[in-house]
Amino acid sequence: MSSLVRLDLDEARSLVEAALAANRVSPLQAAATARALVRAEADGQSGHGLSRVASYAAQARVGKVDGFAEPALTRPRPGALVVDAAHGFAYPAVDLALPALVEASWACGVSAATLTRSHHFGQAGAPVERLAEQGLIAFAFANSPQAMAFHGGARPKLGTNPIAFAIPAPDGPPLVIDLALSQVARGKIVTAAREGRAIPPDWAVDAEGRPTTDPQAALGGAMVAMGGAKGAALAVMVEVLAGALAGGAFGWEASSFLDDKGGPPGVGQVLLAIDPGAFGGARVVERVGVLLAEMEAEDGVRPPGQSRLAARRRAQAEGLAVSDALLTEIKALAGR
Amino acid sequence: MSSLVRLDLDEARSLVEAALAANRVSPLQAAATARALVRAEADGQSGHGLSRVASYAAQARVGKVDGFAEPALTRPRPGALVVDAAHGFAYPAVDLALPALVEASWACGVSAATLTRSHHFGQAGAPVERLAEQGLIAFAFANSPQAMAFHGGARPKLGTNPIAFAIPAPDGPPLVIDLALSQVARGKIVTAAREGRAIPPDWAVDAEGRPTTDPQAALGGAMVAMGGAKGAALAVMVEVLAGALAGGAFGWEASSFLDDKGGPPGVGQVLLAIDPGAFGGARVVERVGVLLAEMEAEDGVRPPGQSRLAARRRAQAEGLAVSDALLTEIKALAGR
Repeated sequence: MSSLVRLDLDEARSLVEAALAANRVSPLQAAATARALVRAEADGQSGHGLSRVASYAAQARVGKVDGFAEPALTRPRPGALVVDAAHGFAYPAVDLALPALVEASWACGVSAATLTRSHHFGQAGAPVERLAEQGLIAFAFANSPQAMAFHGGARPKLGTNPIAFAIPAPDGPPLVIDLALSQVARGKIVTAAREGRAIPPDWAVDAEGRPTTDPQAALGGAMVAMGGAKGAALAVMVEVLAGALAGGAFGWEASSFLDDKGGPPGVGQVLLAIDPGAFGGARVVERVGVLLAEMEAEDGVRPPGQSRLAARRRAQAEGLAVSDALLTEIKALAGR
Repeated sequence: MSSLVRLDLDEARSLVEAALAANRVSPLQAAATARALVRAEADGQSGHGLSRVASYAAQARVGKVDGFAEPALTRPRPGALVVDAAHGFAYPAVDLALPALVEASWACGVSAATLTRSHHFGQAGAPVERLAEQGLIAFAFANSPQAMAFHGGARPKLGTNPIAFAIPAPDGPPLVIDLALSQVARGKIVTAAREGRAIPPDWAVDAEGRPTTDPQAALGGAMVAMGGAKGAALAVMVEVLAGALAGGAFGWEASSFLDDKGGPPGVGQVLLAIDPGAFGGARVVERVGVLLAEMEAEDGVRPPGQSRLAARRRAQAEGLAVSDALLTEIKALAGR
């Protein structure tokens, strides 16, 4: 067992930046990526956090991610933004899109940005929360390499395809909804396989497309969407937004986000932003407060995002809790 | 048992129009509403079809729906449309919004319309399909009176809150995704109660918020979202769009769509439209074809919407199959 060490947020960011910069990643790409990974780690989403540094560095070293990519933005219409991530990391492309979305939403009332030739989107709630912090309502849709079966299918085709949404709230941080469309994260099936435990029958199908409680059979089959046919239909919607509207690779066309094999994943993402000022103005935000109060008033109910906010507060106060092994690995990449 | 009669689509539309017009509904409201109900019935969505005529007429008679409402559209920003349904039926407001969304999406690349002081949205897939028939990608979000619990809760608060999405496809009709966020339609629980059958434990909670297999206990508790906490979070997202952005009533504030008691439901809806021409143009639609082909190539997999399209083809060829009792009821309302 590895022990946990506490790492200040600024210190973590500069260490991750150094680890990437030492592995064929430009200052622009390294800074944006380090910020996003540390933010996800602080928010308790360690699957999108520091655990990614080593595989990101490996992908940059072999050129699967272009660490020197310069994302480029065009605005073909007043509310339409097209961002070419140029096979770099997704985060600098997101950073380029956000201020343009704010301006375009002010102008048009609503705007959309597609991100093409992109990579792992990370914490999908982060960009929408940043837009909501600027007073906008925002959606994000992202696909990822093949993991889930089509409804009725047996083979991994669809990504786990997160949907995220944020809206400003009257007191305190925005209301953020952020969910992958898979029933569970793949890591839970891997853990059950390692520990020889059965899994619930609604997590995955085997190679014949039958629901299975055997984690090994599940790993040879495909994960399934949350909510059965309905969740699978939403995953198709996200796949179409990322792979058709944004011009990215579909899940079954994309290489892995996790290893340095093959060409760039080339997935797509879509961000949508709405200026409430164009619709109901201050009343919109007030009404969000009414909804949150209704949730808080009922026993057993909590508004979405409470555990994320608690993790963030703790990380801000006490720093990140990082395993000794992970810290050693990142330091080695940074040559420290 | 009532026997089924076949009713030509035009005949059905004119009969429904007459039934509404005879019950304090203007020609504008009656025509739009009749078209929408007949379309839903033809698509096999009878819950949004002719079964609604009697309750719509009853609501118009007492003024719970204003059958003489004139929906009004404003365009506060180039991509932002605000439609006041004025407590009439939702359908004339939708009909007003659609051409404006097309024009605004051409101008800005993306546009949004909120519908306020609105009523039952009916078949959520219909307006998005109509936008996709004009070459746009579209989303619809609508809330409805309290039916589902918040995650962890015991009381009906959220509507069943449909999400619909459509995108043009290269050969044939648009790809349409249309789903209510409840695990099942409430009617299934009512049927189980009538027949004394147990229900699966993931359909509903009892009045203490515990999963129940007793349909009576379920009817005294609340329905639950598909996909557990994730589906409930999506239902909150839809509630916020309808009840905050569009300025509608939240699920727990809205009166029933089904009876003539209380004031107008006053729910809200949001439509979003994206012009693919502002992003990837013809390539976007081609890529939808790639996705559909991938689904069709796998055994056991069908693209979403196949049963709807089959029902529609059959209705177009053979007319609607309507129960004798329902036809008699509608004829009586029409004074025929």
